[in-house]
Amino acid sequence: MLLGMRDDEEMGRITLAQVAERAGVSISTVSKVLNGRQDVAAPTRVKVERLLEAHAYRRTTRSAREAPLIEIVFHELESIWAMELIRGVENVAKAHNAGVVLTESGTRHAPGPEWMEAMLQRRPLGVVLVFSTLPTEVKQQLRSRSIPFVIIDPAGDPDPDVPSVGSANWNGGLAATRHLIEHGHRRIGIVTGPEDMLCSRARLDGYRSAMTMAGLEVDPDLILFGDFHVEGGYDRATEMLSRPHPPTAIFAGSDLQALGVLEAARAHGLRVPQDLSVVGYDDVSIARWASPALTTVHQPLRRMAEEATQMLMRLRAEEPVSTRLELATSLIVRKSTASAPTGSPAGRGGARS
Amino acid sequence: MLLGMRDDEEMGRITLAQVAERAGVSISTVSKVLNGRQDVAAPTRVKVERLLEAHAYRRTTRSAREAPLIEIVFHELESIWAMELIRGVENVAKAHNAGVVLTESGTRHAPGPEWMEAMLQRRPLGVVLVFSTLPTEVKQQLRSRSIPFVIIDPAGDPDPDVPSVGSANWNGGLAATRHLIEHGHRRIGIVTGPEDMLCSRARLDGYRSAMTMAGLEVDPDLILFGDFHVEGGYDRATEMLSRPHPPTAIFAGSDLQALGVLEAARAHGLRVPQDLSVVGYDDVSIARWASPALTTVHQPLRRMAEEATQMLMRLRAEEPVSTRLELATSLIVRKSTASAPTGSPAGRGGARS
Repeated sequence: MLLGMRDDEEMGRITLAQVAERAGVSISTVSKVLNGRQDVAAPTRVKVERLLEAHAYRRTTRSAREAPLIEIVFHELESIWAMELIRGVENVAKAHNAGVVLTESGTRHAPGPEWMEAMLQRRPLGVVLVFSTLPTEVKQQLRSRSIPFVIIDPAGDPDPDVPSVGSANWNGGLAATRHLIEHGHRRIGIVTGPEDMLCSRARLDGYRSAMTMAGLEVDPDLILFGDFHVEGGYDRATEMLSRPHPPTAIFAGSDLQALGVLEAARAHGLRVPQDLSVVGYDDVSIARWASPALTTVHQPLRRMAEEATQMLMRLRAEEPVSTRLELATSLIVRKSTASAPTGSPAGRGGARS
Repeated sequence: MLLGMRDDEEMGRITLAQVAERAGVSISTVSKVLNGRQDVAAPTRVKVERLLEAHAYRRTTRSAREAPLIEIVFHELESIWAMELIRGVENVAKAHNAGVVLTESGTRHAPGPEWMEAMLQRRPLGVVLVFSTLPTEVKQQLRSRSIPFVIIDPAGDPDPDVPSVGSANWNGGLAATRHLIEHGHRRIGIVTGPEDMLCSRARLDGYRSAMTMAGLEVDPDLILFGDFHVEGGYDRATEMLSRPHPPTAIFAGSDLQALGVLEAARAHGLRVPQDLSVVGYDDVSIARWASPALTTVHQPLRRMAEEATQMLMRLRAEEPVSTRLELATSLIVRKSTASAPTGSPAGRGGARS
């Protein structure tokens, strides 16, 4: 049972029989809706769902059919993050003898209805969602079935209404930029993520603070928003490196973008790190395998997924959980950063096209 | 029901009641063993399993509790292959409204007993195993419960006793080497996978055939076995590039090894592809993201997993399936290969240390 579930009567919550009565259907029909069964007409289902939501219905017993499964739902399984997150969920699930069900579903903002239906039939122990905010109906459907859920939100913009796990983006941006400043870089470019994502904003603000605190000017020409993908990193870095006063270092918003920066440097005949220093973000395995291996900000994705799954287990055990957990990031120094090239900081010529 | 299961009586197979009688236990105890329940003493369980195996027992009915789940079991989830395989299983599972349960379990040769136990309780529609050969007891346990299973075997050494999906390794080796020969390379090195894996052998033989058919000498100094990892690729390439007569091209046994070759080239001051051409194997996403993007042999991992999952569904429907399906590989030309450097084919000097 979940928090507060013993107190249904005192809180004036509705019972299954009352929902059935108000909807003008049998108790077994309401039960079918709760279990995601397909043999209920759509209008009836909608009516029952609305009553459940309006009265904040909470299932008070766990079914014997409940399966030892934990679900993880992604919008985009392509993401280089996915495997690390799966590993984290799998680690904790294994310790609880639970299987991990993996689904790629829905849009950037919500899991799809097919998943919801199938999941209700599976009756998992809990659900980890890799989404930022969830639509009210999704939250309500999960709550009315007493299925605990936690959000992993590397985007840094979590639904305040749902327990979530993220990481310290601002500190990551600060650490990356300070590292470059300490190596004598003065013209430092940043290719960050999408403008509308809080994680991009937080990392950029960390960059700005590091620059300002070191007494360095922030040149707006050296701040470009990207899309977290290789091609975006390549395009933005090409733009910066083609300018009359190119940077001597670029801080990328993701390791994928950093790979694009490496390729742009190669296309400009620049050696990394001798001519250009590059810092990535995330520390996924490709960072280690890049040539040269990337200096990057470690985002503890596996730990984040482990924490999220442990939160599910605490929610099931009616233990208190934090609404928001933010794990620390840390700088991993490898081979893509070095001292700024000597000579005029902005005056390197070379093979730039 | 599976193939041949209607004929139990005629084939003289044992019934549940007969197993119970011979084991001196109740029918419900035998049923508990079949369902992976924990409330059966270990010696009883072993006795029942042995009888099931000795008499090739096959469950003849599917339980109402059977869940719409497909399981995929990996030895090593770290593998860069894993995500592509998961995607393939997920694609087909989704079309059948089934969830995908993911497990990392066991040794290189067999899934672990914890998985077997939990899986029997989950009662999935079928199981995809990313292993080469399976121990007899694992096959027997799955067969006695009538759970269909298929092996995905990129290693090219499948259990002849189990339906499996692989890909054409020899042809991949041939295509990669021919591509290099067509670009004028004469001294072509190969850093292949472990010596004891058939896929490494098949790719190496493809390389040899391409060389021989082009009238080129195969220099044993330019054949090194590796381990499919970045570090192995780096070490072996460093060894080759440090020789008095280094190759002008290296064919790596995996994309990860190819990344190691790129790094070794960088450390030797060699430009790819101007000074050294590099071909990878697998065509996982990192191949596209490398700098320069890797020319590589596409192994259709996602398609392989889709085929394997479709085979499960055909097995369930009692349709005939091939015992071994081998999908075609194809060469993807990107930026890491170019014409051989001009001048004496083996005489490049340069910044080699």
